[in-house]
Amino acid sequence: MELLDTRIDDSLARIVQELATTAERIGAADSDALAATADLIAGARRVFLLGAGRSGLALRMTAMRLMHLGIETYVVGEVTTPAITSADLLLTASGSGTTGGIVRAAETAVNVGAEVAAITTVADSPLARLATVVVLVPAADKLDRSGAASAQYAGSLFEQTVVLLGDALFHALWIRSGETADDLWPRHANLE
Amino acid sequence: MELLDTRIDDSLARIVQELATTAERIGAADSDALAATADLIAGARRVFLLGAGRSGLALRMTAMRLMHLGIETYVVGEVTTPAITSADLLLTASGSGTTGGIVRAAETAVNVGAEVAAITTVADSPLARLATVVVLVPAADKLDRSGAASAQYAGSLFEQTVVLLGDALFHALWIRSGETADDLWPRHANLE
Amino acid sequence: MELLDTRIDDSLARIVQELATTAERIGAADSDALAATADLIAGARRVFLLGAGRSGLALRMTAMRLMHLGIETYVVGEVTTPAITSADLLLTASGSGTTGGIVRAAETAVNVGAEVAAITTVADSPLARLATVVVLVPAADKLDRSGAASAQYAGSLFEQTVVLLGDALFHALWIRSGETADDLWPRHANLE
Amino acid sequence: MELLDTRIDDSLARIVQELATTAERIGAADSDALAATADLIAGARRVFLLGAGRSGLALRMTAMRLMHLGIETYVVGEVTTPAITSADLLLTASGSGTTGGIVRAAETAVNVGAEVAAITTVADSPLARLATVVVLVPAADKLDRSGAASAQYAGSLFEQTVVLLGDALFHALWIRSGETADDLWPRHANLE
Repeated sequence: MELLDTRIDDSLARIVQELATTAERIGAADSDALAATADLIAGARRVFLLGAGRSGLALRMTAMRLMHLGIETYVVGEVTTPAITSADLLLTASGSGTTGGIVRAAETAVNVGAEVAAITTVADSPLARLATVVVLVPAADKLDRSGAASAQYAGSLFEQTVVLLGDALFHALWIRSGETADDLWPRHANLE
Repeated sequence: MELLDTRIDDSLARIVQELATTAERIGAADSDALAATADLIAGARRVFLLGAGRSGLALRMTAMRLMHLGIETYVVGEVTTPAITSADLLLTASGSGTTGGIVRAAETAVNVGAEVAAITTVADSPLARLATVVVLVPAADKLDRSGAASAQYAGSLFEQTVVLLGDALFHALWIRSGETADDLWPRHANLE
Repeated sequence: MELLDTRIDDSLARIVQELATTAERIGAADSDALAATADLIAGARRVFLLGAGRSGLALRMTAMRLMHLGIETYVVGEVTTPAITSADLLLTASGSGTTGGIVRAAETAVNVGAEVAAITTVADSPLARLATVVVLVPAADKLDRSGAASAQYAGSLFEQTVVLLGDALFHALWIRSGETADDLWPRHANLE
Repeated sequence: MELLDTRIDDSLARIVQELATTAERIGAADSDALAATADLIAGARRVFLLGAGRSGLALRMTAMRLMHLGIETYVVGEVTTPAITSADLLLTASGSGTTGGIVRAAETAVNVGAEVAAITTVADSPLARLATVVVLVPAADKLDRSGAASAQYAGSLFEQTVVLLGDALFHALWIRSGETADDLWPRHANLE
């Protein structure tokens, strides 16, 4: 295995295989949670996204697409992100469901009456217990270095899955919107 | 001079002295431009801010305060910043007034019918020529390494002045708004 | 098709299917380019990464992992990123291979004697012509809104592929390094 | 006062006056702490900077300058920032000295044997107690909305002072280095 994996195309094939297995399991077990997450996004006044490290980068990819859909979207920690209030949604991703800053943000969101959606690998985690909807990803979180759940390093499979889940949520919401690609295009940033 | 300046408090005193001189000159020559900039901010549907390097960081400090005033504010280049349209304002800072990405953004803003305000050291620069309002800062831009306009390195005096101008604009707009500090407070980010 | 795609799990399955096809094609056609990219990363004094929008976020995910491998890594545009010099590598991603800021950065890199690697969909693009190594992704770039190359919006398939290519490069370099997950762990940021 | 302050040039003059008073007080009371901070920066293997909100933006301005001096510099929270270790310095700014994430980072830094320098308004704060050197700024922190310490909103005077302190530290370290502006210039980012 290790010898093969020193070829990049073999590594790529392995990653795609892990993602296919993970996506299939999520589809079998969590399609209701995914649908509920899409409904929360569609029904929210504004959507706030928060993840740490690579999960945070994955959610930023999602945030950009939600903005393209015309949804008022904010990444927590950016300069002009306002306070969350009721009628807003906080969409989070944390492999372990224990990341301190994310759990505290979820508590704040719940306290002001906002909804919380969580993508995590641990159903019984502090983050999952705070969330209205939990999408459970059958992948290692980054603290699991056993190699049992994935041949990849740390939380890589989880973080890749967050990228794909965000794009799947976007894709479905886009189809539902009835808008064409040309309708979305004028919303892309034009000052860069 | 150099010997004194190896003491940090002497460096600090020198910086404050340079800022006092610069602020006095701006007040004498550019108070109309400052008032016009405040009016553009107050009248805009949304405010977009753009600067490179340290000027960009200075404008991010301004952006945060405009958001606290309840103004819909975006930093160009951040993930969820939408397209600028007419009725919006692009507030820029560029010492030389020639920074490529900023000049191109100003052209785009003008083309879509948005207003452009520019803080710069060069009245006859490409950026200044595109702007509705120009605030002229009598300080070195970062390409001027002669030491003539300031004892500080490169564009430091200009960049510090952008910080203070942004806060002066905010302060005046805040007083005009009639809101108290307690009124602004709930707009501060609450998820960090 | 559209009816099915309003289910999130169907969207997810479609995305995984597109990625599997894309990865297979890259493996068949570009395994040498992938190997050469890995060699450039392993041989560089420092690695600089640059992409715009979602491609830039994808490369930031890669950047974090290269840092975990102990490679001195910089994201272009971040505050403390220094000047590139010879012996360094610029790793870029641009679907169209025409993004202005990326082409200019590649020109600068070439001019100072640095190597350039490019992930793009267009072999005959300005970026590809500047690069030492080109990894060609058979996916739509974001300007292609025809839907011919992918059912997904704009450059989504390309951007997802950049995430996976970055992680495949990391995975192979990690296996080659002979280090365990526990060896990498102490390099993770500890101040957040 | 309010009537005058609705003119931007009057607001600017007021801000400069507050900064002059603050700088004078720091010079009188804290010149030893400033000198010690400069020595910590000069003696550190690497410098990590951390502040929240506008204080964080102010420290990013400082970080860019330290990089121009040739110091290996990292902003906490950026993508490729590695783990802090002994022989490194954590330079922080927090008006109240109680910001959760900053206090926790300072604890981690102390635990691994790194030095901590703190700019704050509260000598007896959790952050100050963890720091090797404390620079005390006689200004309101952002939680003080009484208007007693400054006519400006929240922590504005503190945050402006952090900008100027960072530039004063840089200026003195630059003079000490014996390098010319032309010596520093090649270290500026060349890929943007």
